[in-house]
Amino acid sequence: MRAEAMVSELGAISAEPDRLVRLFLTPEHRRAADRVADWMCKAGLAVSEDALGTVRGRLEGQGKRRLLIGSHIDSVIDAGKYDGVFGVIAGILAAEHCRDKRLPFGIDVLAFGDEEGSRFPVTLSSSSACAGVFKPEMLAQEDRNGVTLADAIKAYGKSPADVPAAAYRLDQAAAYVEVHIEQGPVLEARNLPLGVVTAINGQTYLNAEFLGEAGHAGTVPMRLRRDALAGAAEAILLGETLARESNGAAVATVGRVAVAPGAANVIPGNAVAVFDIRSGDEPARATLVEALKSGLRAIAARRHLGLTVTSTREVATTPCDPHIQDQFADAIRALGTEPLRFGSGAGHDGQAMAKLCPIGMLFVRCRGGISHNPMEYASPRDLGLAVAALIGFIERFEPGRLSG
Amino acid sequence: MRAEAMVSELGAISAEPDRLVRLFLTPEHRRAADRVADWMCKAGLAVSEDALGTVRGRLEGQGKRRLLIGSHIDSVIDAGKYDGVFGVIAGILAAEHCRDKRLPFGIDVLAFGDEEGSRFPVTLSSSSACAGVFKPEMLAQEDRNGVTLADAIKAYGKSPADVPAAAYRLDQAAAYVEVHIEQGPVLEARNLPLGVVTAINGQTYLNAEFLGEAGHAGTVPMRLRRDALAGAAEAILLGETLARESNGAAVATVGRVAVAPGAANVIPGNAVAVFDIRSGDEPARATLVEALKSGLRAIAARRHLGLTVTSTREVATTPCDPHIQDQFADAIRALGTEPLRFGSGAGHDGQAMAKLCPIGMLFVRCRGGISHNPMEYASPRDLGLAVAALIGFIERFEPGRLSG
Repeated sequence: MRAEAMVSELGAISAEPDRLVRLFLTPEHRRAADRVADWMCKAGLAVSEDALGTVRGRLEGQGKRRLLIGSHIDSVIDAGKYDGVFGVIAGILAAEHCRDKRLPFGIDVLAFGDEEGSRFPVTLSSSSACAGVFKPEMLAQEDRNGVTLADAIKAYGKSPADVPAAAYRLDQAAAYVEVHIEQGPVLEARNLPLGVVTAINGQTYLNAEFLGEAGHAGTVPMRLRRDALAGAAEAILLGETLARESNGAAVATVGRVAVAPGAANVIPGNAVAVFDIRSGDEPARATLVEALKSGLRAIAARRHLGLTVTSTREVATTPCDPHIQDQFADAIRALGTEPLRFGSGAGHDGQAMAKLCPIGMLFVRCRGGISHNPMEYASPRDLGLAVAALIGFIERFEPGRLSG
Repeated sequence: MRAEAMVSELGAISAEPDRLVRLFLTPEHRRAADRVADWMCKAGLAVSEDALGTVRGRLEGQGKRRLLIGSHIDSVIDAGKYDGVFGVIAGILAAEHCRDKRLPFGIDVLAFGDEEGSRFPVTLSSSSACAGVFKPEMLAQEDRNGVTLADAIKAYGKSPADVPAAAYRLDQAAAYVEVHIEQGPVLEARNLPLGVVTAINGQTYLNAEFLGEAGHAGTVPMRLRRDALAGAAEAILLGETLARESNGAAVATVGRVAVAPGAANVIPGNAVAVFDIRSGDEPARATLVEALKSGLRAIAARRHLGLTVTSTREVATTPCDPHIQDQFADAIRALGTEPLRFGSGAGHDGQAMAKLCPIGMLFVRCRGGISHNPMEYASPRDLGLAVAALIGFIERFEPGRLSG
């Protein structure tokens, strides 16, 4: 399979020899972007690159409006090779297939460089620029080495002054669609290769910082302790319980805990747990967040701990356009397989692109639901079906019938 | 108060300008040792230094047997100035006071350099050498920069080959006593300046490593998760509950948690909690450790997590000699204050010295029970009482009546 070989070729471009690490605006990004540009060129697309390094492959159509097909080529640390990359490759292969079809709209294949947020504290900066919602204050964000996004753009040979020019005009962009591995176990559990995304779930990040009193682990009696980590441990279990009780409407995760001073023989004086709460059901997410906040306060009060709760991310659910969903579903059915519709628990560039135009997404089954992990895998057959479904979608696409 | 001024003088010797950091066999250790040697000299003691940098100030007596009085001059990172240092100063001041008394035993004041274990993975190496229980394999231990203890000894101008010569002969050492701030809240709660230590509590370190399955925080349904951190959170609360239920017989602390991969949007695949369990009551500690281990297994089984439990430290309770306890108590009573007897939750050089001879300890009240912290404080009046009690002890000390 051609898609599989291309996925592997890009998967070999990494900052480290033993694992896949490809961060935004790094030499690895440059190498991956050059490879993508080369593929686009050979597919007959006119290649350009904007101020954030997004590679664009353009196929002219009969009208002025364009169908945008994109995904990202950056990675998490120790990543799998399909995440993002396959969506770009699917776009190139589909556009190549449509080269001689004289479609009633143009196609732009977009390879974004900042979806994972692995380098800077903010993310979706490249798709935000295309959507015209890039915030200039993002330029001041620093990576772990203190390099600002503005400096990274310059080091990549671009100019922050050109960011506004990356934005599409509203009358240009008909829709944005993306093919992506599911990164979850739903399609595999239903034994289906492809799914239609109904929405990208909303997300809340809550930082819960408990303040207790550090003390010697051997000398302070249990009843005199104010152990910040014990409070955080209760909070972690509360988040899990609340999400379980939502019966599938929401998920809650604590993936990171910071404990200070952090020595085995010192009672923790400070503990921070970061809650990642997601749901495609806005009231369900709000209910869970409120219940969690009030539970955190109760834990802190009972344990005589200080508590600071900060919401560091608040992203509303992004619905996918119903007409695009239907067209994807028709294209999947035409391949002889059932189009399962469900929400995306993961975030995607579509969240930014939805500020510009209607969006839609096609999911591809991945083994074990595993992603952000070198074990990530999608079968060549499923990849082929996804490219075929994207082509079928393009053939059915009617910009005039969109709700946006 | 002279002791207070000396404590402050030594407290100013640090590797960092804004906080107290004085690690074993560093230039700061050298400077502190030189200051201590100078004080010993002026107190009329004959000064020497062994292969591990322990400074010894010798006062000859009428017999061959010696009372060893010691503590340590190394510190934790961001330390208080009393911990260890005051015990050395109390020994010097008491020995100076006894200079012309022609005691029936000699006195050696010992300033150890490795009690905190802040530099190397092992600790008590300097008191172990004095006690003749130094294990040669300790020499291969490395600090954070990969410097072995053997190399650090050489860089300090000493020779690892001279370590055995640091050991006291069994017939030389009559007893080892140490004055130390309590590092806990017991004396303050009872409004008493001084306490007699009954034993140095035994300690178990348990590393509990939970193995789950990392996954995307947005896409894996709650019921399909195997979240290692959620298991560790339950374990932390179990340790706390078991220690509370011991009704003061034992304490249990988790001061450090390691989570992997450790990203806010990834379900933890691995979580390690380190339990520090202490008790002066050996059966109580064993009971708690067993209950914790069996509870950890139950948590892992219920959550379908892997579990590895490793005991990384197992130190038996070190009893203080009853006769030394009585002599300290008599000396405290003679100062007009009640001698409260209780166990030491913190570890001390006496744990190593007990392998050589009977030991005893005198505790001094410290504010808020706070230690290992720049807020550490003991009043000049209490320091003075402690020196007076040590002198009173020396005057009462009868090597022939010891149980050891």
